Amino acid sequence: MKLSILGCYAATPRTLTNPTSQVLEIRNHMFLIDCGEGTQVQLRKNRIKFSRINHIFISHLHGDHFFGLPGLISTFRLLGRDKEMHVYGPKGIKEAITLLLKLGDSWTNYPLIFHELTSKEPTILFEDDKVTVETIPLNHRVYTNGFLFREKPLERKLNIEAVRDLKIDKAHFRNIKGGEDVLLDDGRIIPNGKLTLDPPKPMSYAYCSDTQFKPDITEQIMGVDILYHEATFLETEKHLSAKTKHATAKEAATMAKMAKVGKLILGHYSTRYKSIDLFKEEAEEIFENVELAGDGRIFQF
Amino acid sequence: MKLSILGCYAATPRTLTNPTSQVLEIRNHMFLIDCGEGTQVQLRKNRIKFSRINHIFISHLHGDHFFGLPGLISTFRLLGRDKEMHVYGPKGIKEAITLLLKLGDSWTNYPLIFHELTSKEPTILFEDDKVTVETIPLNHRVYTNGFLFREKPLERKLNIEAVRDLKIDKAHFRNIKGGEDVLLDDGRIIPNGKLTLDPPKPMSYAYCSDTQFKPDITEQIMGVDILYHEATFLETEKHLSAKTKHATAKEAATMAKMAKVGKLILGHYSTRYKSIDLFKEEAEEIFENVELAGDGRIFQF
Repeated sequence: MKLSILGCYAATPRTLTNPTSQVLEIRNHMFLIDCGEGTQVQLRKNRIKFSRINHIFISHLHGDHFFGLPGLISTFRLLGRDKEMHVYGPKGIKEAITLLLKLGDSWTNYPLIFHELTSKEPTILFEDDKVTVETIPLNHRVYTNGFLFREKPLERKLNIEAVRDLKIDKAHFRNIKGGEDVLLDDGRIIPNGKLTLDPPKPMSYAYCSDTQFKPDITEQIMGVDILYHEATFLETEKHLSAKTKHATAKEAATMAKMAKVGKLILGHYSTRYKSIDLFKEEAEEIFENVELAGDGRIFQF
Repeated sequence: MKLSILGCYAATPRTLTNPTSQVLEIRNHMFLIDCGEGTQVQLRKNRIKFSRINHIFISHLHGDHFFGLPGLISTFRLLGRDKEMHVYGPKGIKEAITLLLKLGDSWTNYPLIFHELTSKEPTILFEDDKVTVETIPLNHRVYTNGFLFREKPLERKLNIEAVRDLKIDKAHFRNIKGGEDVLLDDGRIIPNGKLTLDPPKPMSYAYCSDTQFKPDITEQIMGVDILYHEATFLETEKHLSAKTKHATAKEAATMAKMAKVGKLILGHYSTRYKSIDLFKEEAEEIFENVELAGDGRIFQF
């Protein structure tokens, strides 16, 4: 699992900071999460192939999370895309994109499929044999969802030495990897655990931005490997965080602790602070394993 | 008159090239012309004060000319703007911006005034005692206007030595600068030309992008000091230029020659070419005084 941070700052694009966008590479999928202005340039800078993106998840319709989308959708056409593109986001996103294209007498050469969201309950948006993606309902000034990405368990790995020693026929391999025991010709039953090795543990990633502190998502994100949680402010600006329905670094860390996540990544910093290290310091008072998102930073898990 | 090129490339924003936007500083006005994605970052890089911009002119509603506008309008609010902002552009621009703001439950703290255009005849958009701005109807795939910026003539300058030698009373100065002759007490009439000096010649700037070669604008832009004309293609791609209703460098130069302009600035280059010098070479075969726009380049006239 690989997370590329394209932008992780709040509010407006600046010379050195970009609004929110990230790419999650998970079991050969490349999911684009949010799309602030300038995302397509950030994709290029990070050498991410546009053609590998087939699903775009938009958390909410504030400009710093989706004003890069109309341009990106236009660029896909210029690049000659013909594959389907799926866009998941709050109701209204289809009308907005459609209007912008229509005004320019433009269109897409590829099927552009909108999945408009209105539910305030966790909802599965995507599922195949490798991963699931579901919404995490959040609390912000407008209707907002986070997204929970989960790898599905892989098949067990064949213990090559064990099956060779026991002279087990290849015809059984599929069943063995599926978890079955084997009945040998001599009547012995070999338990699956002796024939297989544990596969890599499935990973999970929870993206929570933008939101105020929302403890009732604890159960849904319990035990995820990685939690990206917004921390627009420090506790010194808690009054602003309450007013604007954002979270502080301390609140993000509290969320990480309550949900017993593996690692917390902070982002969506207000640009009012001299150094983002202050966010890490504040969070680490509550939760141990804290990382700071940074534009262009890549996390490999 | 000072022209700052923020972006001058066609189609999509890339790592090193920006879509169309420029700022014309003319008699203390700062006019923003077109606003492709990333314009607000380009404004910052060029150290242009956001607060000095009060008028934005949008040529047409293709993304590379206006997808930066929603973000810029939002940023003005974050910067605490309270002054009026005037946006001039094709009909539909108000609906688009309003919808995007509404979806984010956003608004502007300042009066945002749209001047929607539908006329296919030259139309005066702005006039004060210093400048006029009028549309130049162009031919592109969608309804498109260029813009013609003209300084108004300044008052004549007082010839200090002459009025001192003739002992002319200060009470006459305003009339003299207005062009009047003076009747002295001894009955002599002093012609204005002896009392004043020519003021700096008023400058004019014509912005023509995007458009196919359109000779019938010749009369309107005749003799302008500076013509910015799009040159998306070279003559070798004339078939594409016809199909997409763009111009070649040769056609831009032909326009410059026909309209007897002072200087031609080329821009809106397709990124398919290895070097933009090719555009200059092609244009110079027709017209002598050719400059190449470049992102971040400043022209001072």
